[in-house]
Amino acid sequence: MNIDDLLAFAKAKGFFWQSAEIYGGSSGIFDYGHVGAMIKRRFESLWLSYFVDSNRDYHLIEGSTMLPEKPLVASGHAARFNDILVGCSKCHTYYRADVLLSDNKITVSEGASATEMDVALQKNGIKCPRDKGVLLPAKTFNMMIDVRLGPEKSDKGYLRPETAQSAYLNFFREFNVLRKALPLGLAVIGKAYRNEISPRQGLYRMRELTQAELQIFFDADNWKVDFKEFEGIRLPVLLYKGKKTEMLSLRDLVSKHGIPEFYAYHMALIYNFYTTELMVPEGKLRFLEKGENEKAFYNKVHMDIEVDVESWSGFKEVGGLHYRGDYDLTSHSRGSGQDMSVSIDGKRIMPHVLELSFGVDRNIWMLIDLTYRKDGERSVLSLPYALAPCQLAVFPLQKDEKIEKKAAELYDALRHKFKVITDSAGSIGKRYARMDEIGTPFCITVDFDTVDEKSDNFNSVTVRYRDDKKQVRKHVKELEKFFYDEYS
Amino acid sequence: MNIDDLLAFAKAKGFFWQSAEIYGGSSGIFDYGHVGAMIKRRFESLWLSYFVDSNRDYHLIEGSTMLPEKPLVASGHAARFNDILVGCSKCHTYYRADVLLSDNKITVSEGASATEMDVALQKNGIKCPRDKGVLLPAKTFNMMIDVRLGPEKSDKGYLRPETAQSAYLNFFREFNVLRKALPLGLAVIGKAYRNEISPRQGLYRMRELTQAELQIFFDADNWKVDFKEFEGIRLPVLLYKGKKTEMLSLRDLVSKHGIPEFYAYHMALIYNFYTTELMVPEGKLRFLEKGENEKAFYNKVHMDIEVDVESWSGFKEVGGLHYRGDYDLTSHSRGSGQDMSVSIDGKRIMPHVLELSFGVDRNIWMLIDLTYRKDGERSVLSLPYALAPCQLAVFPLQKDEKIEKKAAELYDALRHKFKVITDSAGSIGKRYARMDEIGTPFCITVDFDTVDEKSDNFNSVTVRYRDDKKQVRKHVKELEKFFYDEYS
Repeated sequence: MNIDDLLAFAKAKGFFWQSAEIYGGSSGIFDYGHVGAMIKRRFESLWLSYFVDSNRDYHLIEGSTMLPEKPLVASGHAARFNDILVGCSKCHTYYRADVLLSDNKITVSEGASATEMDVALQKNGIKCPRDKGVLLPAKTFNMMIDVRLGPEKSDKGYLRPETAQSAYLNFFREFNVLRKALPLGLAVIGKAYRNEISPRQGLYRMRELTQAELQIFFDADNWKVDFKEFEGIRLPVLLYKGKKTEMLSLRDLVSKHGIPEFYAYHMALIYNFYTTELMVPEGKLRFLEKGENEKAFYNKVHMDIEVDVESWSGFKEVGGLHYRGDYDLTSHSRGSGQDMSVSIDGKRIMPHVLELSFGVDRNIWMLIDLTYRKDGERSVLSLPYALAPCQLAVFPLQKDEKIEKKAAELYDALRHKFKVITDSAGSIGKRYARMDEIGTPFCITVDFDTVDEKSDNFNSVTVRYRDDKKQVRKHVKELEKFFYDEYS
Repeated sequence: MNIDDLLAFAKAKGFFWQSAEIYGGSSGIFDYGHVGAMIKRRFESLWLSYFVDSNRDYHLIEGSTMLPEKPLVASGHAARFNDILVGCSKCHTYYRADVLLSDNKITVSEGASATEMDVALQKNGIKCPRDKGVLLPAKTFNMMIDVRLGPEKSDKGYLRPETAQSAYLNFFREFNVLRKALPLGLAVIGKAYRNEISPRQGLYRMRELTQAELQIFFDADNWKVDFKEFEGIRLPVLLYKGKKTEMLSLRDLVSKHGIPEFYAYHMALIYNFYTTELMVPEGKLRFLEKGENEKAFYNKVHMDIEVDVESWSGFKEVGGLHYRGDYDLTSHSRGSGQDMSVSIDGKRIMPHVLELSFGVDRNIWMLIDLTYRKDGERSVLSLPYALAPCQLAVFPLQKDEKIEKKAAELYDALRHKFKVITDSAGSIGKRYARMDEIGTPFCITVDFDTVDEKSDNFNSVTVRYRDDKKQVRKHVKELEKFFYDEYS
């Protein structure tokens, strides 16, 4: 599928579509329908259980999306969270200069200034793609969305540009409420906001997005991870200085490429999450190391987690692993006047931060792209079972009082344990098709045998598997345990 | 506890506190810490399972929090979502006129105009409570928070003032993606934003709040509910024309007080949610009917769900049940040009809306207020088990290698099934106390007998109940089933 195909599919089947679409839609802002909202909840639960609940020192918190100006000045966002824009002198359409350049196959470094962008645009004679108008000089544009509060609207604030800030702002209180020990992990799942100028590629670049981020605060001199257990594991990495993606062992990443042990260990955790939990095929994932000019100046090590997504025409960022040093707590200590250094074993230290950052919307798009396939006539979404929006469907084979009654009973018995749909509209083939395309792993059909006391198949039903259409006969009494096992 | 006590408790124990508190805090904006965030998640799950998952025609969706201007003009919010403010001519502090009046025990009707407020303020000689300055004339103030998007910040929008709008804007697509049938329920759990002028009373009046709302779209001529089954149930209602709260049967509400059957039925559902699921004592809940001057003009029936909360000094609104007629879909049909009337059995109708609306933050505050108690030396939070942030705690009785190893094993075995804390810091009494005050229903203690092969109590542990401190001995093999039963 290309982007338009995927968007059309998502819209028709209840996944997502532009917000306020009856009013013409909002650029870069999406709503999730009943199918998409369920996948999103399941993705968030899976992420939480894998990265957060697995560690007794990691916790989920919830921070506000509106923040006052001061912390975002201290964090550097007010001064540096910028895009460089060029506008057309004729039609006043604006473009991100880097996007316009890359659309024209011209590369500039990620940290290029407005002047450097201008030079590159002029040298290559780039005009407005819409009406060929001459471009105005590039300008620096802050991407945060500001809000003004109070009766005179004089209290300036921003919608947070990343959930990470909520964790940094709460570190000090949580450290003191909790065990006063490191490492301490604070996770936030929630909205972040950016005034993106060219929102596009579906859920890739959005003005309102959901992030799932885990900030691990640790003592840089003393953080022991289970490195030995994983050091032989090889991961696909495109090093900054490398020419292509290589399979590198954690051992080599550490000894030959200067990656800290705790960092390499978390690469392995993330790799396992993608390949085992999300079932991304191994060849479709890589870590992309960012070089000095590309990464934020405070990041000591910065890798993007990239997945090869057909509708995005190749590898695209779905997450990141960032060793941010002590930049965040130092900046907020300075900005707030609250010294956030802590005392560990009698030693005063400023905790360092390792950030695991994931774009929830991007991951959902990626999963649909990777798992959607045509299988002859039918469309199937082979989502991992844990992410399926609906777990079971119960169908009465035909319009028949006894069959329909039995199906209703079964639906009622199962719906307290699983997310179940029941559907009696249309042929059984059409009903299977509707479940296949939203990724329901199992369909249960109640037929004449089920309600026929004389049949050998009395009180048994057909269970159909989504992926290979295999059908098995199960006694209704076996169903709960059968599905419980499949889903655990 | 009064408001300050509850806030101090919430802050010290990891529930919630003002956002950006190291920068002095944001008025009316709160962050949830690791304990509060877990209670919030559980409240949302419980709400969802009770009101939404229980009905095959009801679905959760997720709408954006930023909306363009047009739908909020059509909904009436741009013109009418106003507070009336009075400012002090000396210190420029602003007050909500109605709050200032009610603080001075002066009542005006809920729909009173700025002029009416001015008259009431002047007649009673009200001055600025802060410095006794003369008040400026009252002014109408729109409570929505506006955002501006795009490269020239020319696209005007708002942060949604209620989650309900996300459901109305998505009705038409969902109706067509789903079974093209009514009733259809669309639920949204998410943030809403209001530029409240006097945010106060903790989580009562907030600038950024979480709502859980269910909008049920139905055919006004044909919505059958199980009324007969419930008609004898009596509910505490303070009627608009009543003088005090009365226990009224659903039958009487319908036949004597003009309440529609479907409305009364949902009152019973809500009452059951509060008394059975949230375990609010029966005498502490009531429905407050709003009269013509008090309710929004489009509401045909409007009742607040009120709970008697000590720290809020009496009955306060924690939710509402609103029969909104066809106002919402008619307004958005007109505003968008998309006719949202639908064809049901060959008849063209504009669906009506019944709204079940809950303030998540208010409900959490209420639950802490209602369930916190002093029991001799100890503080206990007797939250319903389903809402407990942590389900089990595992303690090694003393520093002892065998005991600690066994406790770690037990923690590991249980943490995949339950939310478990393990804690070895301080005396066992202190550890029980820490669990009691965040509402952990069960503490498990591993002691010398547990690891003593010769003891009759080998491989058994002490399980202590939060509410009555009762202790029972359980074999470790029994634990999973025991807790599974307690939590189901």
